Amino acid sequence: MVVNIDQDRLEGTMKEQAQIGSTENGGLYRLTLSDEDKEVRDWFYKQMEAEGLEIRVDEFGNMFGRREGRNAEKGAVLVGSHLDSQPYGGIYDGALGVVAALEFIRTLNDEDIITEHPIEIVNWTNEEGSRYQPAMQGSGVWAGNHDLYEEYNKTDEEGVRFEDELERIGYKGETSAEPSEDYEGYLELHIEQGPYLEEKGKDVGIVTGIVGFTWGAVTYYGEADHTGPTPMHYRKDALAGAADVITQIRRLPNMLGERTVGSTGHMDVQPNSINTIPGEVTFTWGFRDPSDEIIDEAFNRVLAEAEAAAERESLDWEWEERMRAPSVDFDETNINAVENAAEELEYDAMRIFSGAGHDATHAADIMDTSMVFAVSENGKSHTEEEFTTWDHCYTAANTLANAALNLATENSL
Amino acid sequence: MVVNIDQDRLEGTMKEQAQIGSTENGGLYRLTLSDEDKEVRDWFYKQMEAEGLEIRVDEFGNMFGRREGRNAEKGAVLVGSHLDSQPYGGIYDGALGVVAALEFIRTLNDEDIITEHPIEIVNWTNEEGSRYQPAMQGSGVWAGNHDLYEEYNKTDEEGVRFEDELERIGYKGETSAEPSEDYEGYLELHIEQGPYLEEKGKDVGIVTGIVGFTWGAVTYYGEADHTGPTPMHYRKDALAGAADVITQIRRLPNMLGERTVGSTGHMDVQPNSINTIPGEVTFTWGFRDPSDEIIDEAFNRVLAEAEAAAERESLDWEWEERMRAPSVDFDETNINAVENAAEELEYDAMRIFSGAGHDATHAADIMDTSMVFAVSENGKSHTEEEFTTWDHCYTAANTLANAALNLATENSL
Repeated sequence: MVVNIDQDRLEGTMKEQAQIGSTENGGLYRLTLSDEDKEVRDWFYKQMEAEGLEIRVDEFGNMFGRREGRNAEKGAVLVGSHLDSQPYGGIYDGALGVVAALEFIRTLNDEDIITEHPIEIVNWTNEEGSRYQPAMQGSGVWAGNHDLYEEYNKTDEEGVRFEDELERIGYKGETSAEPSEDYEGYLELHIEQGPYLEEKGKDVGIVTGIVGFTWGAVTYYGEADHTGPTPMHYRKDALAGAADVITQIRRLPNMLGERTVGSTGHMDVQPNSINTIPGEVTFTWGFRDPSDEIIDEAFNRVLAEAEAAAERESLDWEWEERMRAPSVDFDETNINAVENAAEELEYDAMRIFSGAGHDATHAADIMDTSMVFAVSENGKSHTEEEFTTWDHCYTAANTLANAALNLATENSL
Repeated sequence: MVVNIDQDRLEGTMKEQAQIGSTENGGLYRLTLSDEDKEVRDWFYKQMEAEGLEIRVDEFGNMFGRREGRNAEKGAVLVGSHLDSQPYGGIYDGALGVVAALEFIRTLNDEDIITEHPIEIVNWTNEEGSRYQPAMQGSGVWAGNHDLYEEYNKTDEEGVRFEDELERIGYKGETSAEPSEDYEGYLELHIEQGPYLEEKGKDVGIVTGIVGFTWGAVTYYGEADHTGPTPMHYRKDALAGAADVITQIRRLPNMLGERTVGSTGHMDVQPNSINTIPGEVTFTWGFRDPSDEIIDEAFNRVLAEAEAAAERESLDWEWEERMRAPSVDFDETNINAVENAAEELEYDAMRIFSGAGHDATHAADIMDTSMVFAVSENGKSHTEEEFTTWDHCYTAANTLANAALNLATENSL
């Protein structure tokens, strides 16, 4: 059985969600647990209600909508992604996966299809990790990879506790943040966020796994001092040390592997005045690679660089690794379900390894998992310029719907 | 005639002002035109009133207190500094010069001394330049080196206009921001902010001039993008480009001159999220040297480095020079007045060139000028750890008082 979702409705629903937390330049500023996040959650809740789903919000804010199947003993097929965004991010990252899951349900309802397995759709809390770290926090807690109370106590840059914000927006739910049953499998649609599908002229991507990564931060303590009368050899310039390491972070991937990437995304300079030598600087590192050995090596190398720069500049320093995710290989059953769906729909698909982390990382720990990638124009994301054509949104959403339908039907025979 | 100021009262008054905008670690956070600046201005106003001074606040917020002399036709001797501070700055930078000027007046009042020339003491608006640029803004406007209306329209990082803030705190005064008469000369006491007096074991410094400097900023425009799936060769990382130049700014002084210094004090990274390649970064440069030729060369070199890094990283870029001050040689009359005062008081003094800019830079454009430096422990300033002993505060303040008294007396004969 092949279903076809409604492309116009998909587009309309995408545009609806994109109104919430929209930026001047057509992007999103919808940080997790913000007022905008509350608003988009309220909107999503209503959409799920309208489709007759049985809604659960768990104690970590993860939102589930359940559509029962024919056989109450079968595990549910879970489909979803996230509605939070980066600061000045795009309208597709995360949201397309949630809207596609919703469109899948709407299509089943339109066509009165009763699946063998129940279907659940999900909006995970804080996938982006820009306000509270780590990223993929909601799925991580749910999968048992993070401690609920430890994550509750995380604070944002203004010192606001995660749990307090979750309560403030009214999404600290009742159910336990853990799998409520033995799920049949997980599927997630996401934009690729890289250039490979477009470069190869493909319609859609079949995701076989996710790169591993290390995220962390170094803090340098130098001496804040006047930029004028302080002789150069007296200076302990925390920013000069940080700049030294950041240039190495730009070079390191070239020495590690063909697919290694690395960058510094965040930094904080104190006191940050043109006329004062920076006394304290924190900067992050992030490295990714399909090989866990290369991630280990990147981690060791960046700390060696940080130590060398601290010594050159006579700085005290400390570091913390904020997140380490091993690379993930998805399960063949679900990869095949995506591949078969693309074939049935006659889409030109290719297998691809994800360069970004996704909630699927954690889902893969406890159930069969795969993903569908939509083509990203110029591979751009985490920016307002992120773009995917409505045709590519539709192609990917249709692939997702049919793959999920297959999992919810065939395996039940 | 030698006067001796009251060391205990000097210390008490210094401690009083240090209460306003005080930080946990014993420093000051008293940015120009902030509530704290208003409070310290109110305090200073009351102190001047108590000494019977005739107070003027000009249209740029510069505060003057006048004590008439015997001869109404003589130009006034102007003595002062500034009460604003760096973010997390020290309690001496600026404030010691204003308090010493006030103590000079108190001493004249105590001893019923009538000077030949009038004396004016001054608190200049926004010497620090950390909230609004340029630094030394109030003295610069007053000396005719900046346009009043252009400076009124400057905005801080929150977009708040200078003039609006000046009105808000009630210090947009009535008188014109320009010299109201043909002044006899200017003297300013300031902490050295460098290590030279302490290294040589001196009691006090006789300042012969001020280094020139260039301040400016480079903005790089790259492409904000996801740190994971974006291949390294696709990236246009504005922060990697900035780091590249900042490391060069640390090296450049070594290639320019023995006394050249340079650093980056401020930077702004957008969107500043651990998982997004920085799309836009602004960072400052600052170089100082006693030679204007070397300042020219530093300016040319930093732009060449910025251009090279922009090319390496495929960034668009722009730059602005925010301030250029030629080096200043003070006038021998006033230098000698300071030197004679130190000799009369039997202090071990040395001549020294200032490595930092001061309001004296602008004053020197229109009248004979010199400065007195107090010993800075470890040369530290623009930090809460800034420290000068009460003995050194006294020594410098006493030198200032006697030098100013000489100028206000001897020249009148």
